[in-house]
Amino acid sequence: MIKGRFTLPGETGMEKEIKELVDLWGVDAIRDSDGTKLSQDLIDMGLTVYSVLCLVRDDNEWVKQNPDCLQQIYLLTEEHTAYSDTLEIDIMATFFDQQFKPNTDDDIHRYWQVMDRTTGEEIKTWDYDGKNVIIKNAAPFHAYTVAFLAYQIWEPVSMYNHITNSWTSEHELTVDPRKEKVRKHLLERLERWLEAHPKTDVVRFTTFFYCFDLIYNQFGKEKTVNWFGYASCVSPLAFEQFEKEYGYALTAEDIVCGGTYNTPFKNPTKKYLDWMDFNCRFVSDFARQCVETMHKAGRKAIMFLGDHWAGTEPYGKYFQNIGLDMVVGAAGDGVTTRMITDIPVPSTEARFYPYFFPDVFHEGGDPVGESMPIWIKCRRAMMRKPAARMGYGGYISLALKFPEFIDHVTEITKQFKSIHEEGKGTKPYTAPFKVAVLNSWGKIKSWQTHQVAHSLWNQRCYSYLGAVEALAGFPFDVDFINFDDVKNGKLQEYGVVLNMGDAGTSWSGAEHWNDAEVVAKIREWVYSGGGFIGIGEPCAYNIDGKLFAAADMLGVQKEIGLTASHNKPVVTVEKEHFITADVTGEIDYGESMSMIYPVGGTTVLDEANRSSNLTANEYGKGRSVYIAGLPFTNQNARILMRAIYFAAHSENEMFRYFSKNQELECHAFEETGKICVVNNSECAQSGEVLINGRTETVSLPPMGCTWLNI
Amino acid sequence: MIKGRFTLPGETGMEKEIKELVDLWGVDAIRDSDGTKLSQDLIDMGLTVYSVLCLVRDDNEWVKQNPDCLQQIYLLTEEHTAYSDTLEIDIMATFFDQQFKPNTDDDIHRYWQVMDRTTGEEIKTWDYDGKNVIIKNAAPFHAYTVAFLAYQIWEPVSMYNHITNSWTSEHELTVDPRKEKVRKHLLERLERWLEAHPKTDVVRFTTFFYCFDLIYNQFGKEKTVNWFGYASCVSPLAFEQFEKEYGYALTAEDIVCGGTYNTPFKNPTKKYLDWMDFNCRFVSDFARQCVETMHKAGRKAIMFLGDHWAGTEPYGKYFQNIGLDMVVGAAGDGVTTRMITDIPVPSTEARFYPYFFPDVFHEGGDPVGESMPIWIKCRRAMMRKPAARMGYGGYISLALKFPEFIDHVTEITKQFKSIHEEGKGTKPYTAPFKVAVLNSWGKIKSWQTHQVAHSLWNQRCYSYLGAVEALAGFPFDVDFINFDDVKNGKLQEYGVVLNMGDAGTSWSGAEHWNDAEVVAKIREWVYSGGGFIGIGEPCAYNIDGKLFAAADMLGVQKEIGLTASHNKPVVTVEKEHFITADVTGEIDYGESMSMIYPVGGTTVLDEANRSSNLTANEYGKGRSVYIAGLPFTNQNARILMRAIYFAAHSENEMFRYFSKNQELECHAFEETGKICVVNNSECAQSGEVLINGRTETVSLPPMGCTWLNI
Repeated sequence: MIKGRFTLPGETGMEKEIKELVDLWGVDAIRDSDGTKLSQDLIDMGLTVYSVLCLVRDDNEWVKQNPDCLQQIYLLTEEHTAYSDTLEIDIMATFFDQQFKPNTDDDIHRYWQVMDRTTGEEIKTWDYDGKNVIIKNAAPFHAYTVAFLAYQIWEPVSMYNHITNSWTSEHELTVDPRKEKVRKHLLERLERWLEAHPKTDVVRFTTFFYCFDLIYNQFGKEKTVNWFGYASCVSPLAFEQFEKEYGYALTAEDIVCGGTYNTPFKNPTKKYLDWMDFNCRFVSDFARQCVETMHKAGRKAIMFLGDHWAGTEPYGKYFQNIGLDMVVGAAGDGVTTRMITDIPVPSTEARFYPYFFPDVFHEGGDPVGESMPIWIKCRRAMMRKPAARMGYGGYISLALKFPEFIDHVTEITKQFKSIHEEGKGTKPYTAPFKVAVLNSWGKIKSWQTHQVAHSLWNQRCYSYLGAVEALAGFPFDVDFINFDDVKNGKLQEYGVVLNMGDAGTSWSGAEHWNDAEVVAKIREWVYSGGGFIGIGEPCAYNIDGKLFAAADMLGVQKEIGLTASHNKPVVTVEKEHFITADVTGEIDYGESMSMIYPVGGTTVLDEANRSSNLTANEYGKGRSVYIAGLPFTNQNARILMRAIYFAAHSENEMFRYFSKNQELECHAFEETGKICVVNNSECAQSGEVLINGRTETVSLPPMGCTWLNI
Repeated sequence: MIKGRFTLPGETGMEKEIKELVDLWGVDAIRDSDGTKLSQDLIDMGLTVYSVLCLVRDDNEWVKQNPDCLQQIYLLTEEHTAYSDTLEIDIMATFFDQQFKPNTDDDIHRYWQVMDRTTGEEIKTWDYDGKNVIIKNAAPFHAYTVAFLAYQIWEPVSMYNHITNSWTSEHELTVDPRKEKVRKHLLERLERWLEAHPKTDVVRFTTFFYCFDLIYNQFGKEKTVNWFGYASCVSPLAFEQFEKEYGYALTAEDIVCGGTYNTPFKNPTKKYLDWMDFNCRFVSDFARQCVETMHKAGRKAIMFLGDHWAGTEPYGKYFQNIGLDMVVGAAGDGVTTRMITDIPVPSTEARFYPYFFPDVFHEGGDPVGESMPIWIKCRRAMMRKPAARMGYGGYISLALKFPEFIDHVTEITKQFKSIHEEGKGTKPYTAPFKVAVLNSWGKIKSWQTHQVAHSLWNQRCYSYLGAVEALAGFPFDVDFINFDDVKNGKLQEYGVVLNMGDAGTSWSGAEHWNDAEVVAKIREWVYSGGGFIGIGEPCAYNIDGKLFAAADMLGVQKEIGLTASHNKPVVTVEKEHFITADVTGEIDYGESMSMIYPVGGTTVLDEANRSSNLTANEYGKGRSVYIAGLPFTNQNARILMRAIYFAAHSENEMFRYFSKNQELECHAFEETGKICVVNNSECAQSGEVLINGRTETVSLPPMGCTWLNI
């Protein structure tokens, strides 16, 4: 295969097999990882050498001599109810004692916080006996929590890998570069590391300094995972610096926030936004120093999107200051692929799931079955915005035990490289209007909505994430915008805006929908010709029992109990509609909704249990579509694509490059005169494809794709 | 059949057939109705004569001469969005012009109200051109409503009957007794009416003065029905008197309340409670004058529970002042039966559905099929608290066209009378602990929860109303209590407390669950041995994404999006449990819930789609049970009964009188030594029944019942 664009995980002892794979897959780079080292033979194979470097967990001995430099975290206990006026809370009772150790070195009465969760008030009088926080004047039958600072005594990503792979090595510690002496030490170490790794061409930072929130419970199992969290950035020093700069002090509660830990599902407080900004500036600044050190040494610097990436915010204001050469990330679906490939950075690399780890690559395992749907999703995204490079992770020795998987990767590699060969870096056909996803975060969380962690299925998310997944492979330019953008007139840039999520979450918008300016601007924009698509509980803020703001625009309202006395319209389902023209069976709305009813002249396209699941509305010159939920399926993607063209009044435009079979999709590279027809299913498919006016019949094997001339 | 306890609707021309029915059913009273008159032959038949009297709609001529005395109502338009700075709202556009006429006689700028619903602010500058309210300085793309006073130019209950039965008579007008001259007129008219009806023994007021909220739309169809509403009590005079008494003025918004019209599903505002109290005092006082007039004339006075019953509040503070001899009400199920029979009044009569109206009694109709499930439900309630009398409504001539229905009523009558013959007015066996239903209203809405109107199915209600229906026939003393009762220590009177409803409704409690005193008191009471049963979204008030207060007590929490980052417990369903011991198939949770997860040591008894639908928890010495929804079925009633005995730690007590077949139930009258075994199904059933230690096998026909010796 043509050489290039492929990074292979190396493994000492597998030199011969790797040499064969290098030819088979056209590998041009080899890498080590947390857990694998490259032998000299591998290093000397003539490939670009990538070396992993996680500076903050790289030197246990130094940390042991400087225990004050350990990274910290805020932890919040469960709620404990007082059954009398004395309550003892064993603060570590539900945390992993190999991961955390309470910090009693700093003033616990300044940095810890005891809250009466029944009243919402802080309790100032309490003691700590080294195990329990003791509240002597508890209000009986009130529930209390303790938020406490803890040292992170086992770096969480390494801990995860260690436990998953049953390693026996020493637990890795982690240092906090907030301290000047740590930064000095790390920069020195970086220099020494460069000297010690003369053959390394590219340093893969994995990542920089602070891990996302990964908190294990007393049984050594995952308790909380918030891939977007900032709880690990805390320390007394950080709080001091913050107070000096912002003029107010943060407290534990500002970080743990009643147990939500400021999940991005929650509308951020002003304090939390300050805290994020404070950390982003710090991280990008020190990361830039590290990257500059690399560059001075003639090496390239790439960042792994994940692990210690808190504060990098690839779509934030400071990211580009870091000066990275590339970002590599794990691509588990189209959303995470776009999350990587859309980052404003010179180059990107997608590392595809599954990792070659024993959880999948064991006797009786089905790595091809795991991989195929992932590649199908990633491929859609790659067609829109390809990564420059691809790769895998884990132990190549495990992968080689599955010859059919090696063949499967060969096919993926061929397809991946064809995007570059045929597309030649040009932009595929894109509809003549832009699409925006509207939520409380906007740009900074581009392709990062509705997720608790990277590609992890979550029951509260999949009915919305499916729409983002669909967008990842559609012929639309997609932006993520927030409510300030709405106020600032940005709606004018878009043909269609999507708003989706549960009521009360940032993805829907929560209290932003109680802002008259927002509501009026959205109405005006749709009325003037815009297209609005709401999924689940869009525009949701309960006023007098009316949950959806601008229901006249949206075309539906939800009965939540306070207007049950009002008779609801008699619904006639319109079976024939542009949006549902390709539907072949039941539509899957995921968790769906209940008691959604049409408002005004909305056309109901589907209903179940008396609830309108899919509606289309005309509002002035604009249109809106409501969908009760949209998990990712090929049929749902087709419904959403049609809904978008419908909302944009651009129905005819859709047929320029169009597969009548909804299992197939077209990606047209007009500049190179090529069109790729992809089979998004795991079965053979055929069907008629419209290509700029002509019709061709295409037959493709499972996961197949073909390039035709336009 | 033994004569007595049966009130038959008379119908001129059916004298012969009625005479036969009098013997067949042991009829002792005959009545007229709105739509039927009694012939002299019927009046002279030797039966007690009931005559209907609806004072406020009885004299069109007088109203025409006193148009200022018409009853009024507050109506709220739909929301209208301004597309420019001028907005015209045709205020009557969605109302029935035969029912309402805007009141422009009183100062519209005092009594009407224009609201910007996008900001929540009132607009003071507007005009009215006799059709439209015109807003000249509208904020574009804000939505506006107009609340306006309207005269009621067609009395709504009569209107309903008129339209349903295609009458051609003149539309009945309705007068407002707030005006002194109206009261004077009505009392005079009452005297004249008594003189004109010397044969009337009992006057059935149907009802007193103000109708519940029954609002028709522009097509002459029902738009809103709130059987508990007070919107018809409004008038400038009432507002003036209110202001004088309470020291503050009400506005239209206080009545229409954003379109909720103060549905009882909403926690009442202080102003609304004042308004209710103000009207209840007035209604009970003038009703008392009417009743006294009856008594002076040697007649009995009964009230029809329904129609113009606003302000009577049979479970309120002032009801007993009226001095009624009896209450009659339509019994559509066990809940409405208990609503009637529990009223503190000397006697009650249940009028069973279906009414002999053409909607059911037409060719091809199935009146027996309509009636059987109703009687089965009413019978359960009657066993606990029988009405003194039974009856039917409508046209007897229609019923006589269905001989199998006549036979069916014969059987019902026999069963009804047997309750009095065998029970002899004694109280059936009752468990040695009391049960309370906790919501924001408490006693005043006894047996009136979770309903928009009398026996009317509603999708937001049936999953909760099923539990109330089950309670209506259980061997428990049931009280309805509110959160003040909780604070005042009333929980101590109960063995088990139920709290059920949707989050944000009065039935669950809404903001009362943000009251630390309430939460602590509930926890303490359960911890000390109380039993708590939550259905749907009990204890619900969202704090930091935690919806259920006292989740440690309740045993479950609901994921609503803000804590999705926290892993949920791995659930093992416990298949064998006291609560589910009789379950024979899938449990029907109605609308059910999603993403309910166990907290603490809760035992999960059933789950679906990863959501815990039924759980049992130990909390200190107490217990709690969670159920995701409980529409009424015999199986669900059994589950609830078991849950109550379980929560009360009284499992053994349940088996004192117990049917192993959950389609059968036992009602034991220990004082008379009789036990009634009822078949609550429409199929023949048999099974073993435990009677105070012995076992008997009972076989019963559909809807059958049998009396055994204890």
